[in-house]
Amino acid sequence: MATGGGSTVGQVITCKAAVAYRAGEPLSVEDIRVAPPNPGEVRVKITHTSICHTDLYFWLGQDKYRIFPRILGHEGAGIVESVGQGVTSVQPGDHVIPAWQAECGKCFHCKAGKSNICDVFLHHFEKGVMPLDKKTRFSTMDGNPIYHFFGTSTFSQYTVLDEACCAKVNPKAPLEKICLLGCGVATGIGSAWRIGKVSPGSSVAVFGLGTVGLAVVEGAKTAGASQIIGIDRKPEKLHLAKEQFGLTDTINPKEVSKPVEQVIADMTNGGVWYGFDCTGKVEVIYSALESTQKAGGVSVIVGLVPSTEKVSFHPEELLFGRTWTSGLFGGFKGRTDLPLLVEKFLDGTINLDHYITHNLPFSKINEGFQLLQEAKCLRAVLYTDKL
Amino acid sequence: MATGGGSTVGQVITCKAAVAYRAGEPLSVEDIRVAPPNPGEVRVKITHTSICHTDLYFWLGQDKYRIFPRILGHEGAGIVESVGQGVTSVQPGDHVIPAWQAECGKCFHCKAGKSNICDVFLHHFEKGVMPLDKKTRFSTMDGNPIYHFFGTSTFSQYTVLDEACCAKVNPKAPLEKICLLGCGVATGIGSAWRIGKVSPGSSVAVFGLGTVGLAVVEGAKTAGASQIIGIDRKPEKLHLAKEQFGLTDTINPKEVSKPVEQVIADMTNGGVWYGFDCTGKVEVIYSALESTQKAGGVSVIVGLVPSTEKVSFHPEELLFGRTWTSGLFGGFKGRTDLPLLVEKFLDGTINLDHYITHNLPFSKINEGFQLLQEAKCLRAVLYTDKL
Repeated sequence: MATGGGSTVGQVITCKAAVAYRAGEPLSVEDIRVAPPNPGEVRVKITHTSICHTDLYFWLGQDKYRIFPRILGHEGAGIVESVGQGVTSVQPGDHVIPAWQAECGKCFHCKAGKSNICDVFLHHFEKGVMPLDKKTRFSTMDGNPIYHFFGTSTFSQYTVLDEACCAKVNPKAPLEKICLLGCGVATGIGSAWRIGKVSPGSSVAVFGLGTVGLAVVEGAKTAGASQIIGIDRKPEKLHLAKEQFGLTDTINPKEVSKPVEQVIADMTNGGVWYGFDCTGKVEVIYSALESTQKAGGVSVIVGLVPSTEKVSFHPEELLFGRTWTSGLFGGFKGRTDLPLLVEKFLDGTINLDHYITHNLPFSKINEGFQLLQEAKCLRAVLYTDKL
Repeated sequence: MATGGGSTVGQVITCKAAVAYRAGEPLSVEDIRVAPPNPGEVRVKITHTSICHTDLYFWLGQDKYRIFPRILGHEGAGIVESVGQGVTSVQPGDHVIPAWQAECGKCFHCKAGKSNICDVFLHHFEKGVMPLDKKTRFSTMDGNPIYHFFGTSTFSQYTVLDEACCAKVNPKAPLEKICLLGCGVATGIGSAWRIGKVSPGSSVAVFGLGTVGLAVVEGAKTAGASQIIGIDRKPEKLHLAKEQFGLTDTINPKEVSKPVEQVIADMTNGGVWYGFDCTGKVEVIYSALESTQKAGGVSVIVGLVPSTEKVSFHPEELLFGRTWTSGLFGGFKGRTDLPLLVEKFLDGTINLDHYITHNLPFSKINEGFQLLQEAKCLRAVLYTDKL
């Protein structure tokens, strides 16, 4: 039996969701049905959700699965409406962030402790269904299935999460802000803190200054880096990053006559200690490697690369002790680390306001998609109860 | 003024050395002249030296510099004959291992502490001359210069080292054994301990079971790995590694119908935590990457790759938190770590005997080269005073 505090418990809820019916076509904001949570699941009232480039990637069908119709969205926050049998970590009324980077705590990978990856994510996130029974909890008003996304599907007024994907956080934190921690900002900050492990006093280069890149800058700054070089082709992004996020030096590749990695080498006695690619472009990924110190430099691939492209390199690039790595969600564990990140926001370590360029009613979600696609916003926060 | 205890102090020494005059031609064991050490230099009587594949690589002119005539050799041990002005870390009579992985302790890289690389190595090791004055201390009997190699040139009864390349070790350790720590064995052990950072109870795959690969196996075992899978095309190497070095599982690629990385995935719940390429073959380097766990696996490139070849990969390979890295000399610092490795040998942690398959008089150095080239030996130790 599902348990909860309100009259919706155990009932199918009819609510608004933004449904992606076909790749690249505008989302349809319409009434859908959300089933009650099964055992081990949590139904959450999503109050706010922001839009991330990964939503665009899957909306445009750039992935190999192209699952439709689907409810996208993986940067959200909300309040638990009811919980399924056996759920112990949250209860109705709890403030939560859906964690696409699941953390069950019981699987091979969670127990190994070698990464933040959980088998629930590894085996289910690409399927568009719930791990429990490989079925969906969403349906159209005439009863056709709508698929899940990333275990979160936050572009809906109500969603159903596996308990492994539901991080309980401090209720003092405003949901319209901490929803950003669901993906991009956490990914950037964690790429600096957990994946690259930026050390105090070190030098850093960040290629690409979108939300994730800016969050890497913020992560590097809060980790104590003394020199943070930003690389972007848009002067206004370089300006913003320097004014608000802690960048110390800027390079616009269009304005230098040498390859960027050589400009960086000249600025830093041979290279930075940490290089981050936040563009997903293979030639930039290579440049981000070469911009680091040959001996002991660490280069982190943060950007997602279209599945058809490859990077070529000579192993000599790593020979003197360079490290090349990557990771998802900044190496943060979904349920362990999201509450800590919320505390870091509350204590002022992390600033979320400077990523929020737009606040929109839910009905304007397609406008939000367009803003992001045209690089006219960092984060647009959707208020799901406003239509 | 150079200082020392014997009559040779301050004098040019005439002694035997094995000179490489041209790429791939037999070394000439002949009388040469060794100048006294300049300030900051140490002249060492080399008592024993072994032969490493890197000697073959440079002897065959596979590097891009092709410096000849040259005295190769970088796995040696000996006794300090005299020291140049200002040398404080060693004195005549000290037992030492020439450290091609220099450690001056004062340069940008030594101070940064991000790797084991020292600027003395970085800026000079490829030049074939001494760092101090860019000149050589070796000459033929008729006065023509003979170039140095890797800052060590151990294929000589006497050599001159920069102080940064001279590691003082415990004199209780037999020089005919600890000479092996000068390169291959230390490289393998350190690749497991320092570069891959093999953790207790973990799984490991080692591709290529020459001396370095076997030392990786030994390093993984002493680090507490519970499963160590060796991959080699020669059954006798697999047998030896299992009998003597701690291998738990063997795979002969010629005897399996699936790609090796898939065989490993089946044996290990999806992959090993640590993969080591000790072959220098690009396709094996890729296989060593793919044999590791997608989430949190670490792959280390240990083998040297010919400078014309490249590795291609999709960044997705690293996306779940895999790390790809490499390093020189197993991440060990020349002067800090060689004395510790000697202690690890003395306390029984490291076994050196099982790498020594041949002991040869110095005059048979070409035979030693041939044995290694034909993969008929692990390490041949040359006794430089035996002709």
